[in-house]
Amino acid sequence: MEKLTKILAQIQTVDFSLAEAAQSRLDNLTKPQASLGRLEELAKQVVLITGTLTPCLEKKVIFTMAGDHGVCEEGVSLFSTDVTPQMVYNFIRGKAGINVLANHTGAKVIVVDMGVAIDLEPQPGLVIKKVGYGTKNISNGPAMSRDEAILCIERGIEAFEQELEANGLDICGCGDMGIGNTTPSSAIVAAITGAAIEEITGRGTGIGDTAWLKKVAVIKNALAINQPDPTDGIDVLAKVGGFEIGGLCGMILASAANRKPVVIDGFISTAAALIAYLLKPVAIQYMIAGHASVERGQQAALRMMGIHPVLDLQMRLGEGTGAALAMGIVDAGVKILTQMATFGEAGVSEANR
Amino acid sequence: MEKLTKILAQIQTVDFSLAEAAQSRLDNLTKPQASLGRLEELAKQVVLITGTLTPCLEKKVIFTMAGDHGVCEEGVSLFSTDVTPQMVYNFIRGKAGINVLANHTGAKVIVVDMGVAIDLEPQPGLVIKKVGYGTKNISNGPAMSRDEAILCIERGIEAFEQELEANGLDICGCGDMGIGNTTPSSAIVAAITGAAIEEITGRGTGIGDTAWLKKVAVIKNALAINQPDPTDGIDVLAKVGGFEIGGLCGMILASAANRKPVVIDGFISTAAALIAYLLKPVAIQYMIAGHASVERGQQAALRMMGIHPVLDLQMRLGEGTGAALAMGIVDAGVKILTQMATFGEAGVSEANR
Repeated sequence: MEKLTKILAQIQTVDFSLAEAAQSRLDNLTKPQASLGRLEELAKQVVLITGTLTPCLEKKVIFTMAGDHGVCEEGVSLFSTDVTPQMVYNFIRGKAGINVLANHTGAKVIVVDMGVAIDLEPQPGLVIKKVGYGTKNISNGPAMSRDEAILCIERGIEAFEQELEANGLDICGCGDMGIGNTTPSSAIVAAITGAAIEEITGRGTGIGDTAWLKKVAVIKNALAINQPDPTDGIDVLAKVGGFEIGGLCGMILASAANRKPVVIDGFISTAAALIAYLLKPVAIQYMIAGHASVERGQQAALRMMGIHPVLDLQMRLGEGTGAALAMGIVDAGVKILTQMATFGEAGVSEANR
Repeated sequence: MEKLTKILAQIQTVDFSLAEAAQSRLDNLTKPQASLGRLEELAKQVVLITGTLTPCLEKKVIFTMAGDHGVCEEGVSLFSTDVTPQMVYNFIRGKAGINVLANHTGAKVIVVDMGVAIDLEPQPGLVIKKVGYGTKNISNGPAMSRDEAILCIERGIEAFEQELEANGLDICGCGDMGIGNTTPSSAIVAAITGAAIEEITGRGTGIGDTAWLKKVAVIKNALAINQPDPTDGIDVLAKVGGFEIGGLCGMILASAANRKPVVIDGFISTAAALIAYLLKPVAIQYMIAGHASVERGQQAALRMMGIHPVLDLQMRLGEGTGAALAMGIVDAGVKILTQMATFGEAGVSEANR
């Protein structure tokens, strides 16, 4: 708990003293004021986060965290749990969706084993932070103990800090892999926001109506049996969460503590962000909602945190794919701020007002 | 007219024979089916356009076309017409919004003088296709003659073909520069779609209520005086259009004729696309709506053409900025198709269905 307590204390409000200077620069660039919309807002947010008027987002990292879920024995997913380690190997070989999109954006992918059900071959490109061999089935009791919940958050913090120290990092994004993990994510969002289960339960990898009804029943049951305390993020994570979700929560908190912008991916990452927000509300200032997921539960979580997705491409893959694409847009916004000429520099006449 | 007639004849339907093979490849990639949403749709569209299952969008070009507008004497813009050539020089020096975003995406910017009101210094990076020194004031009569309308479309075709022949081109985007050009764009969209002028007239560079009311009156007047024929794209362009709008229309048609995807930027480019669509409806299969502009008139045009924007970043700058960002997303979609592993290749178990 010491590491988590320290990180939480380290997260402070962003540097609002630069807001006026950033806005003034943006308003003096050779374009009608505010005409680059969201790009300008993102640039300003990055200025406040990093504390410099000339940020540079060269070192981009996506943390893709993996874990298994005991609740899969209830038949909540279309895929077998074998797929979690198979996909981890696919990530390491660089052939999955996240690899393609991270390459496209110029981001590095760090794959973290937070709780895959089998032992994975140690190898370059794989960070082992395993807290357990998959969670327990949340429809029978808690996913993990309170100590394990704290441990997975702390191991997520470690994964971030090790990369920051070893290679440096300007912006990061979060991503997940874990067959069955929309089920705990729905349970987390329902527990914290109070939204109706039916409203925040989606189709995951693409289940049909019968499986969806089963999934809703499983989540209702999990909440009824576990009674997570909606004001205690660690309790929610322990009772209905997942190891990769805890790891992502830790990584998000570490990013905020180190004043680095963090791009949240889809539903699972948003559930992790919601726990981080509950543990330290001001951490929200460091978060950028990358994309609107097809998984409907994400909306309730984003609404509670008051953040709006950069992209809406009807995606629902996870892995950090939405975060990777959105990171490119954030970088574009920062380049607008730092690379465009002002009216004065370019000798362009300003608007008549 | 010969060049235009030839290009229109050359535009044929995309190659639907590849649709099944493209869908099958997408469905076999290591992800739940359709989970990359719009990226997969874009990849498929590019396959059909280019006629290959392994497209590569390496050579990206944005054509930013400039022209002046006689209607500016009615006070429809916040900026003086001096700004059109000043911004052209800013583009050539590489310091404008479009340069920053095109660089970010890996696209080249080709600046085309279609009808700037003064003579510009010939220099590398500037293509001179000037049809006139600004249009005439559309509130008094036609913007240009019918012959000039055909000529600016044909010069837009030339600009595209010269770049294709000289350097090759895999995908292009369109962009505009022309103080006052939301006014002719609104007139074009109103004339063709029949939408109410108030519904399709926006704030342009940021005019206030009084100037907006004036702008609405100017557009109503322009349509009443000129009576453009809504079924004849050339007539609409001649009576209430602009030289850069005609150039963009030609460039879009040339892209379709040469089976290259073309990303449409914001409101002005969408007005140009609408004229292209009117001249050859099947050209729509080659177009990708880059982004939703803040300029409200764009929606009516997109609705008529049945295409949906890739991005919504509340932008309204023009120049090709939205097209440049969207081009990055299209490229990402194509890389998903061509670079991701299939279940078989990666040894990942498929879904249980």
